[in-house]
Amino acid sequence: CWGGREYWCGLESRGAEVGLPPAPSLFPPQIAKEVTKLLEMKARLGGDEGKHKFVLKTPKGTRDYSPKQMAIRERVFNAIITCFKRHGAEVIDTPVFELKETLTGKYGEDSKLIYDLKDQGGELLSLRYDLTVPFARYLAMNKITNIKRYHIAKVYRRDNPAMTRGRYREFYQCDFDIAGQFDPMIPDAECLKIVHEILSDLQLGDFLIKVNDRRILDGMFAVCGVPDSKFRTICSTVDKLDKVRAGALGCNLIVLGLQVFGQLWGLDLIERLLQDPKLSQNKLAKEGLGDMKLLFEYLTLIGIERIFSILEQRVEASEEKIRTTETQVLVASAQKKLLEERLKLISELWDAGIKAEVLYKKNPKLLSQLQYCEDTGIPLVAIVGEQELKDGVVKLRVVATREEVNVRRESLVEEIRMRTSRP
Amino acid sequence: CWGGREYWCGLESRGAEVGLPPAPSLFPPQIAKEVTKLLEMKARLGGDEGKHKFVLKTPKGTRDYSPKQMAIRERVFNAIITCFKRHGAEVIDTPVFELKETLTGKYGEDSKLIYDLKDQGGELLSLRYDLTVPFARYLAMNKITNIKRYHIAKVYRRDNPAMTRGRYREFYQCDFDIAGQFDPMIPDAECLKIVHEILSDLQLGDFLIKVNDRRILDGMFAVCGVPDSKFRTICSTVDKLDKVRAGALGCNLIVLGLQVFGQLWGLDLIERLLQDPKLSQNKLAKEGLGDMKLLFEYLTLIGIERIFSILEQRVEASEEKIRTTETQVLVASAQKKLLEERLKLISELWDAGIKAEVLYKKNPKLLSQLQYCEDTGIPLVAIVGEQELKDGVVKLRVVATREEVNVRRESLVEEIRMRTSRP
Repeated sequence: CWGGREYWCGLESRGAEVGLPPAPSLFPPQIAKEVTKLLEMKARLGGDEGKHKFVLKTPKGTRDYSPKQMAIRERVFNAIITCFKRHGAEVIDTPVFELKETLTGKYGEDSKLIYDLKDQGGELLSLRYDLTVPFARYLAMNKITNIKRYHIAKVYRRDNPAMTRGRYREFYQCDFDIAGQFDPMIPDAECLKIVHEILSDLQLGDFLIKVNDRRILDGMFAVCGVPDSKFRTICSTVDKLDKVRAGALGCNLIVLGLQVFGQLWGLDLIERLLQDPKLSQNKLAKEGLGDMKLLFEYLTLIGIERIFSILEQRVEASEEKIRTTETQVLVASAQKKLLEERLKLISELWDAGIKAEVLYKKNPKLLSQLQYCEDTGIPLVAIVGEQELKDGVVKLRVVATREEVNVRRESLVEEIRMRTSRP
Repeated sequence: CWGGREYWCGLESRGAEVGLPPAPSLFPPQIAKEVTKLLEMKARLGGDEGKHKFVLKTPKGTRDYSPKQMAIRERVFNAIITCFKRHGAEVIDTPVFELKETLTGKYGEDSKLIYDLKDQGGELLSLRYDLTVPFARYLAMNKITNIKRYHIAKVYRRDNPAMTRGRYREFYQCDFDIAGQFDPMIPDAECLKIVHEILSDLQLGDFLIKVNDRRILDGMFAVCGVPDSKFRTICSTVDKLDKVRAGALGCNLIVLGLQVFGQLWGLDLIERLLQDPKLSQNKLAKEGLGDMKLLFEYLTLIGIERIFSILEQRVEASEEKIRTTETQVLVASAQKKLLEERLKLISELWDAGIKAEVLYKKNPKLLSQLQYCEDTGIPLVAIVGEQELKDGVVKLRVVATREEVNVRRESLVEEIRMRTSRP
């Protein structure tokens, strides 16, 4: 759809067409065309039963982020990134896919969950499964041994997650790593601080940070007579035990392992384990317990996607009104024929850095302009009218209280800043 | 590598493991293991000539973003997002891949450039080729007709771009679209303003915004007797003409089309075209020229990846020192045995929202601590020593000037804020 009535316009940046005219085949009117095309195709194919049915959907295990969900996502990322920056971390990014061979042999039986790209000639590629292997590849490639970096990006796993619990096939990971030559436990203390700062900042309520050391569990297995080759398999079994309960396996050590997983490490527990006649003989376990005693060898942060869905549910429950824009003021007019005056004023506001909107109508009704503010949560309306223009003022209306004041045009920006600055 | 000497610790968030112990197979020590594994594999395979050679690299046409490149990327995105928000835009996000059928028949001959995923059972998927079709799918799916949104994300094209000119197979697009029922040209005026604001803000020097209307070109083709079926092909040919020069094709109208592409629209040019006896008879061309006369039907923003590489080159040239962290102060100690005092002080600073770092050494030399600031561009050093602790002060050193002042501990935060606040 086209022309005056239904209407599209937009900006599109493409690395491929710098300073060249846009490829006509990609003009934004295409968007309108595509929408129609897709809906028609759906209508046409939707009907015919039996064979292939055309569905308008995102791929299994993925979702769009609506403006509302993006607002929540931004809130969470801001808390996290602010914290990482406060701790002087750098940030890196890597491609969404890697050479297949880079991922090969890194994930054991989980490798079946890797998304491979189709062989269309050239290199064999796979979507990243986590941010750890790409980070390792980055370090090896650039011979970096010393870095404190965070990396926030989507990763891809072809499993069957419970979407309702905030789990997807495309989901965010949010890694923070400190690598280098240090005296032990100092970076760990900082990691612990970071987790605590972020979770507190997000106000998710009480939280429990579980910590562990792989070598302790390995030591237990060794003492238990488990062959090295079986470690990883059993580890992931134990990992699942939290859900399936211990009794299922008849091995005391595994049950002990489970209890260890199940509770927060404390000096008393470490002491108890160090007193275990068998375990204390095991080099790995002893190392692990030693470092654990010194403090934590590793920390894991609560799943970021999970945090999204907790907050999304809370927002639903509380009926809290999430704003999807940050607009401070709507530039409105009381009478007709004031479009140019509205555009003139909003330009002044934009140039002063004020976040402002205007309705794209020649002669919008004042009521519909006020209604727009109610709907979108814009707190202020700057109203221009014949009289105000004569007097060199603008009528500033506070949407919530309906209070109206005339503000001299030259002090409007200051007034808006003052009224919209966070207390 | 492990334990005391070479050292790793980190946070990793995974939707899959909320509140559960981390999967042992994914512990960050893995990173160190993987780095070694990859380097060994490279050493082993790198040598054997003849068949398959293992290379440590990113896939063809992709790149990592180093902390330095990320700093530039952040600077550019901040300018753009700040502007979009100032104009009251919402933001959405979509999955990196779509159902293959959603992309089918949208890109004509360019379809061969689409990355397909391997059929591993389940749905057939492709990586997004642009943000336009996913946006169309999003609108159609949610029956949205009215939205002002931006979308900044990576898209994927299997062509052979000139990487040196800031073109990749994985590259960013940065779309801004206004859709809905409006009086014509008002949103276009805003788009023009936005482009101007962003390009000015980024200080890329003088710029020329090229504008066009597809219908005018289509009209020219129609008048030229080109069958509709050939339009798209010829369009992309004309699109390429900017490079290959016009003469190559013997059609005056195409050359005219090229000239039109080649220069900024002005009323005089529009008038000239409207006077063209043939063209003025063509409905499409007339509509297009009419709207063009009223203002612009569509604007295109300079390629975002291109902007990255321009700025990256400029930074190289100017030897401007790009900081990759925002750290305001390093907490240092003059004598040994002050680790706990350093950690105590830095916690106070973190809690006050100050961006601070500390070296992960029990007893670092003061010189090496100052050197670290020189290298990373940290402007201030807060030095704790026996005497300062007795006197309840901290010695604050300005790295650039080497000036040192004793600051009472309770006013340290204020002093740091004051000294690091932008003028």
